[in-house]
Amino acid sequence: MSKAIDWSLCVITDRRAAGDRVLLDVVRAAICGGATLIQLRDKDASTREMLELGRALHQITREAAIPLVVNDRIDVALSIGAEGVHVGQDDMPAALARQLVGPHCLLGVSAETVEQAQQAECDGADYLGVGAIFSTPSKADAGSPIGVTGLANIVRATRLPVLAIGGITPDNAAAVFDAGAAGLAVIAAVVTAPEPEAAARRLLAAKRRGGEATMSR
Amino acid sequence: MSKAIDWSLCVITDRRAAGDRVLLDVVRAAICGGATLIQLRDKDASTREMLELGRALHQITREAAIPLVVNDRIDVALSIGAEGVHVGQDDMPAALARQLVGPHCLLGVSAETVEQAQQAECDGADYLGVGAIFSTPSKADAGSPIGVTGLANIVRATRLPVLAIGGITPDNAAAVFDAGAAGLAVIAAVVTAPEPEAAARRLLAAKRRGGEATMSR
Repeated sequence: MSKAIDWSLCVITDRRAAGDRVLLDVVRAAICGGATLIQLRDKDASTREMLELGRALHQITREAAIPLVVNDRIDVALSIGAEGVHVGQDDMPAALARQLVGPHCLLGVSAETVEQAQQAECDGADYLGVGAIFSTPSKADAGSPIGVTGLANIVRATRLPVLAIGGITPDNAAAVFDAGAAGLAVIAAVVTAPEPEAAARRLLAAKRRGGEATMSR
Repeated sequence: MSKAIDWSLCVITDRRAAGDRVLLDVVRAAICGGATLIQLRDKDASTREMLELGRALHQITREAAIPLVVNDRIDVALSIGAEGVHVGQDDMPAALARQLVGPHCLLGVSAETVEQAQQAECDGADYLGVGAIFSTPSKADAGSPIGVTGLANIVRATRLPVLAIGGITPDNAAAVFDAGAAGLAVIAAVVTAPEPEAAARRLLAAKRRGGEATMSR
């Protein structure tokens, strides 16, 4: 897969946030609404369960011709032939992750500070997940929100595309794009939304608004 | 590493079972007592924590010239250059694990039945972890114990070396060797023992007793 990726909207899977709805249906709806990237994240699943979910997701993302990125579990990513992996600061160090996945796999790295962002760039990251921007119920262990100011500081310090994560909603998404984010990474805003397709559309509409605002400055 | 391995005593790490004692000290003591194989197992650790513990254990096992096997996490095994991986029935399927680790890495597979044992052999396993033999507090999700009779049935059905696991103690270890096990895999019997070195020695003494009993039949 070429690395010319549309970073606009990464939807992160969360079986619990999906509630009684089948996660695969939620992901299909999100893709219909314009999601450009899917990240499989499941810290509770067994390896076998994660492989099964990953294979099912990969079938959906391949049909949609968008990348599937696996959070943390590089073994799972390699097994299912996912297009990418994403590592946090408690996961495999980025440089080691790059060695394991080779040069052609997308590598995303979570960064909360300028230092972490620059280190990730040195270590071979293709993109950054930066946040938490706003406070979020999806990830209880996230630090204090860095806000759009913190986001803008990191965007200025790196050449990598930045996906903003943490508490993103259709109402604050335009400000996030204004701060220079290449895209949004969301769990709750799409996966727990009553209508995931419409939720994805509303988030993407903010990119156009944000872009116009940026251009008119 | 050559695959001419001494399977006699595999000690499985368990941070919680080690209690207040440093796990690395417990492992060193177990090796002094004769442990021939160490398995890193930690279902609760972050990937980063598991890498750090894995590297520290690997230093100890390399000095002792015995293999380190990583449970479930093939990504961690590849990262630290461990000599082996061990997969359970909820982990990566054995055939896929073999593809990821290549032909020279030890591959252990958990089997509870003759069918699982034969499948693992087809899938490229180097050894089997068979059990639970007896009931055990270390693994609450283990099925009903298969006993030494179940163990002997599996030993007869496979050419692979069988490590017996589950509730093994110095008192029942001779019966386990008599049933044809190539070795014992233990957590509690060594890691929670007041004196891990002495505990390892007592378990290995059963191999000699079991061997003599077998030879005198």
